[in-house]
Amino acid sequence: MSATAPLKHITLIGVGLIGGSFVLDLKRLGLVEKVTGIDLSRDNLDRALERKVIDAAFTEVCAESMVDADLVLIATPVSTLPHICRAIAPFLRTDTLVSDVGSTKQSALAAFAEYLPDFFANCIAAHPIAGSDRHGALAAQFGLYQDKKLIITPHGRERPGSLERIEALWQAVGARTFRMSAAEHDAVFAAVSHLPHLLAFAFVHEMFDHPDGATYLKFAASGFRDFTRIASSHPAIWTDICMANKRSLLDLLSGVEAQLAVLRGVLEQGDNAALYRYFEEAKNTRDEWLKGQ
Amino acid sequence: MSATAPLKHITLIGVGLIGGSFVLDLKRLGLVEKVTGIDLSRDNLDRALERKVIDAAFTEVCAESMVDADLVLIATPVSTLPHICRAIAPFLRTDTLVSDVGSTKQSALAAFAEYLPDFFANCIAAHPIAGSDRHGALAAQFGLYQDKKLIITPHGRERPGSLERIEALWQAVGARTFRMSAAEHDAVFAAVSHLPHLLAFAFVHEMFDHPDGATYLKFAASGFRDFTRIASSHPAIWTDICMANKRSLLDLLSGVEAQLAVLRGVLEQGDNAALYRYFEEAKNTRDEWLKGQ
Repeated sequence: MSATAPLKHITLIGVGLIGGSFVLDLKRLGLVEKVTGIDLSRDNLDRALERKVIDAAFTEVCAESMVDADLVLIATPVSTLPHICRAIAPFLRTDTLVSDVGSTKQSALAAFAEYLPDFFANCIAAHPIAGSDRHGALAAQFGLYQDKKLIITPHGRERPGSLERIEALWQAVGARTFRMSAAEHDAVFAAVSHLPHLLAFAFVHEMFDHPDGATYLKFAASGFRDFTRIASSHPAIWTDICMANKRSLLDLLSGVEAQLAVLRGVLEQGDNAALYRYFEEAKNTRDEWLKGQ
Repeated sequence: MSATAPLKHITLIGVGLIGGSFVLDLKRLGLVEKVTGIDLSRDNLDRALERKVIDAAFTEVCAESMVDADLVLIATPVSTLPHICRAIAPFLRTDTLVSDVGSTKQSALAAFAEYLPDFFANCIAAHPIAGSDRHGALAAQFGLYQDKKLIITPHGRERPGSLERIEALWQAVGARTFRMSAAEHDAVFAAVSHLPHLLAFAFVHEMFDHPDGATYLKFAASGFRDFTRIASSHPAIWTDICMANKRSLLDLLSGVEAQLAVLRGVLEQGDNAALYRYFEEAKNTRDEWLKGQ
C-alpha cells in the first residue's frame, strides 16, 4: 500500500477543532472513505454529523465504532490517553494504525507502551502545531494545517512504512513534517508554548490576587491584551499539558527565575546600561525570529 | 479663555507618533494655529514639515522656537524630561502651559518641581494610553486617540483652569480623561504595562541565553508571537520607563516571583486540582477583563 492510498475507515476519538479539521481535509481530498467519531458529548457529535465532519457517531468506544479501522486517531486531552488506549485495545486489528495529536509526547509514548504493548509497532506519536481559541466540532475547518508544522516523535520500533503513512496524511492536508525524539519535542514545546502559557497564567493570577488588581485592570490596553491572550486558554487542557511535561517546564522555570533575579539586581542598582543591553538582546532575538516567520 | 478656545502656538518637543498624532488632530479641528517642532533629528523634522505635522522646525530649544507659545508639549523619552525642563525655562512666559506624555508620572512631577520651580503652577503631567509599534514623525496619524484613555496626575498646585484646559484638548482629539495621583498612576501602569514588558523581555532573554534556544525558536508559533510582541519594543524607551518606575515594578516583581513559587510547588507535588483552579482563576480574570473592553 502506498503512503498516500486512501484509507477506508478512520475512527476519530475526540471530535474537536484538531481532529475534526484533519478529517475534513482528508475527506475533501478523497483520502478517507468513512470517518466514525467518538465523543463524550452527544450534542457535539450531532453537530459533527450535520456538518459532515463524521459519518457515524458513538459516545463510547465499542466494537462497531472500530470495525475495519485503518487508523484510530486519538484527539482528546493528553491525560485521557492511557484510559483510551486501554479501551481500544480489544478492538484493534493487527494492522490498525494508532496515532494521537497531543502536546506532550513522552507521556504519549508511555501510554502506548503500557496500554497497547501488543500494538506498539502500530503506534505513531504526532503533534500538529496549530490551534485556535475556538474548540469543539463546530470549530473544525478546512485548511487549518496549511503550512503548519507537524512533529512526529518515533519510538524506534514502528512497523516499516507506518511513520511515512502518517506523515503523508499530514502532508496531504498541508503540514510540513518534522521528526525528533519525544524528549526533544517536550523540551522544545515546554520552551515556546508551555512556559509562555504558565507565565501568562501567573501574571494574570497576580492581578487576581493583588488587592488593587481590579483597579489596575481598568487601565490595561493592547500590550496587556496580547501578552495575556494565552491565559484565556482552556484550564483543563493546560493542566494536563503542564503536568505531563513538568520536568521540562520546571527546568525552564528555573531559567526564568534566574532572569528575573538578574533584572531585579539591575533595577536595584540603577544600572541603565545593563538594562538597555538586556532589553536590546531580547528585542533582537525576537525580531530575528519574526523575520524568519 | 474657555477650555476649548484655539491655541495660537504649540511648541512640540519630540516630533514622533505620540506628539505628532496629537497636533495633527488639533490642527484638523482648528484648535491650534501654529505648531513648532523641536527634534534632534533634522531628517525627522523634514518629514514632519512635509506632512504638515508641524509648521516650523528647530533642532534645539531656542527663543525663536518658543515665541508666544501657549503650550509646550514634551513628548520625548521620560529620562530626558529634566534636561528639557532646564532648557525651556528661560523662554517660558508666565502663562505658558507645560505638559508631557510620559509613561511614568512621579518622575515627571519631580522634574517639573526641580527644574521649573517658578512655573510649577503651569505644569500638567499627562499620559495618553495609546501606542503603536511604529515611531517617528512618519508614524503620526489622525485619530490615534479616539476612545483611548488619557491620565492626568495633578500635583495640587496647578493654576486654576489649567488642568481643564489640557483635558479639553485631549478630549477634543477623542480621548477619555481620568485623574489620579502620580503614585497611583505609576502603580497601575507598572502592573498592566511595565511588568508585562519586563516579563516578555525576560522570557525572550531566556531563549537568548539557553544553549538550545535557537532550536526551540524554530518551533515557536502564534502563542509565542503574541506573548512576546511587547519584547520588540524600543529598548531605550523601556529602560527609561522601568528605571523611572522601579519601586512599583520591584514590588510587583516580588508578586510574580511568589506566583511562580506557587506554580513550582503545585507542579512538583503533581496537584492537578490546584493547578486547574489556578489556571481557571486566571482565565476567568482575563475573560472578564476582555468582556469589559
